[in-house]
Parts: sequence; structure tokens; C-alpha cells
Amino acid sequence: MTEKTALTPKTHTTPPAKFSHGVRKGNILQVAGQVGFLPAEDGKLPTPAGPTLREQTLQTLANVQSILEEGGASWDDAMMIRVYLTDVDHFAEMNDIYDTYFAEQGLTQPPAARTTVYVGLPAGLLIEIDALAVLG
Amino acid sequence: MTEKTALTPKTHTTPPAKFSHGVRKGNILQVAGQVGFLPAEDGKLPTPAGPTLREQTLQTLANVQSILEEGGASWDDAMMIRVYLTDVDHFAEMNDIYDTYFAEQGLTQPPAARTTVYVGLPAGLLIEIDALAVLG
Amino acid sequence: MTEKTALTPKTHTTPPAKFSHGVRKGNILQVAGQVGFLPAEDGKLPTPAGPTLREQTLQTLANVQSILEEGGASWDDAMMIRVYLTDVDHFAEMNDIYDTYFAEQGLTQPPAARTTVYVGLPAGLLIEIDALAVLG
Repeated sequence: MTEKTALTPKTHTTPPAKFSHGVRKGNILQVAGQVGFLPAEDGKLPTPAGPTLREQTLQTLANVQSILEEGGASWDDAMMIRVYLTDVDHFAEMNDIYDTYFAEQGLTQPPAARTTVYVGLPAGLLIEIDALAVLG
Repeated sequence: MTEKTALTPKTHTTPPAKFSHGVRKGNILQVAGQVGFLPAEDGKLPTPAGPTLREQTLQTLANVQSILEEGGASWDDAMMIRVYLTDVDHFAEMNDIYDTYFAEQGLTQPPAARTTVYVGLPAGLLIEIDALAVLG
Repeated sequence: MTEKTALTPKTHTTPPAKFSHGVRKGNILQVAGQVGFLPAEDGKLPTPAGPTLREQTLQTLANVQSILEEGGASWDDAMMIRVYLTDVDHFAEMNDIYDTYFAEQGLTQPPAARTTVYVGLPAGLLIEIDALAVLG
């Protein structure tokens, strides 16, 4: 039987419920929905980067990336990135930030597919991102 | 060619459109979006458990589980669980129910990753959940 | 290392950001969120089919299908189809269109699982669909 491994970067706060920030089983790696929380600090509640969309988006992408890396993957392995925004008016700015970010990642494979939809998120959060990766 | 198998537990009503409640192909199992419908009864329209979030959430999780089991999988094989709520104010209560539920499942592997977002659902439904599992 | 291939049908406009319309790696194929844009024309902004839900839905399904086919897959390989609508009142009509469409596809395997939720989309778009396929 192939083992399922929980991926828990040191920078991440404990999940608020019985789920994993990421799991890997064989060559499949799934990253849970990440938000723009700054690296965890003992005794401090999770705090989002901000207040701008740019700061939250970059922190969220960093949080996804650290889970990919914890599982031995990189953005090159990402097949699907799901972006949840709270405001349709953020689409163009998010795309700008997203493009610049990925241009700087030095991808050697085509970028992941993506779906962007507009949903509700807890107060103070402007963006949530999850990802599916296939390694190997 | 690997066969794709439809997973249709006896408890489930016929899907309202041309989709499967779950499908398995090789070691990949996908559960369709489940809601808190009580086990199907002949001649009766699908009826959600309720009216509380607790009742709907537990019924929804049971409905996901029966599809996993129909495909020879268990919660231990679940990689990703997507939770759709209609109200941000339900997050804490859903997490409590979710935690207690999974504590009782006797998982031998790390829990699945999870994304929770807040969307619209048909009237009377408070939660929808789907899941991706990797077997073996 | 298994190569990740970008899937870019000739009918598709360039993505508005650094993502792929679809990617395939090994036997996993992921289609990005598609909307009802008509086939791309040089010098013309992306224009949705419409204005009816029927026209947008059929164009969106055609756009998903062309990415599946670009990757050597068909609807028979689709495991999960995610449907994003903007209005709960569109559910019944979308199901009718969806059923008729898939009845005409001559599937030889069970239909994919599906989740439908109601979200915000950019102005003028009534539906978005993405898909996960497993080949072989």
C-alpha cells in the first residue's frame, strides 16, 4: 500500500480543523486551500499579510509553494491552480501579480491550468488558492 | 484500456442530470458534489436532512463515504475534500462537526487536504461536499 | 521525468494570464476553467456566445471538449466536471442542456462526476466549466 503523507511546512499554523495543508500519495500531491497568512508565530493568531490584494496574493502563493516543496514538488509539477477571489474587480490586478510571480519562478514546464471564481471568504481574506500537482 | 466505473450506492437518488455520483478509473476515484439528502425512498422527492447544519453536514459526509466505499475506498484514501458552505458564519460549527466526525473514523493515514469556500446553493441546502481519492 | 504538455486548441484565445487552457502529464489531463467564448478571431476581443444560457453552455462545453481532444482524450475520459453558474434559477435549464448534450456524445463509459455551485463571474458570463480527465 502506498503511504499518504501529510505536508506541513514549519511556516504554517496548525489547520483549524482535521485536515492537512497538503497530502502526497504516490505521484499525486494535493495542496489545501491556502490564504495569505504570514508565517506562524507562537502564541499569535493567524494573521493575513496585507492589507493589499498584492500582499495577500504573494503570501498565498508562497504558502502554496512551501507545501509543494515540502512534498518534493515545484510549480513545474502543478497541474491545476484554483483561485478564489471575493471581488470580480480584483481579476485584472490578480492576473498582473500572478503573471509577474510566475515569470520569476523560472518554470521549465508549461504553467498549470487555472480556474478563477468569485466566492465569499472569511472577513479580511481577499484570496484563497489551492493546487493539484503530479510529480515525476 | 482501463475501465471507468460509475459508483451508485443504493442509498442514493438518481442524479438529476447525466452525471455519476462517483467514478473510479484505475486508482483515481472522484466523488461528485454531495448534499445532505436522506437515503432515497421510492416515490419521494430527494429530501435533505435537517434543518440544522449539523444534520446536513453529517448526512453529506455519510453520502460521500458511501460513494468512496462503493468504489472500494475509505476516508483514508481521500486526498482532497471540497466543502461549500452558504454562510461564513457556519465555518466554526462546520469545523467542530467535521473534527468530531473524522476523529470517530479511526483514520490510519493523515486526513485529506481541504478547501472551504462560500457559495450559493439551491434553497434549503446549507452544505455541499465533493472528494478526490487515490487508492492503493 | 514525465513531460507536462500545454493544450492550446487553435480556437482558443491566449489565456489572459500565465496559465494553460489545459495540461497533460502522463495519464492525467486537467482542463482550465472555460467560459463561452466564441472561437478566437485576430484583432477581436474574446466574445461570449449568447446571450442565452443555452448558447453559452454549449459553447463552454465545446471549449472544454476541444482541450480534451487536444490532449488525446474524450468525454469518456472525464472523471470530474465542475460547473459554476451565477444564478440558482439556471440549474434546471443547465441540466436539460447538459443532458441533451451528453446524450448526443455517444459516451461508451459512465458520465463524469459533477459538482455545481453558484458563484460570481465577470460581467456577461453565465457559466464556467472545468474538467479533470484520466486517460488510458
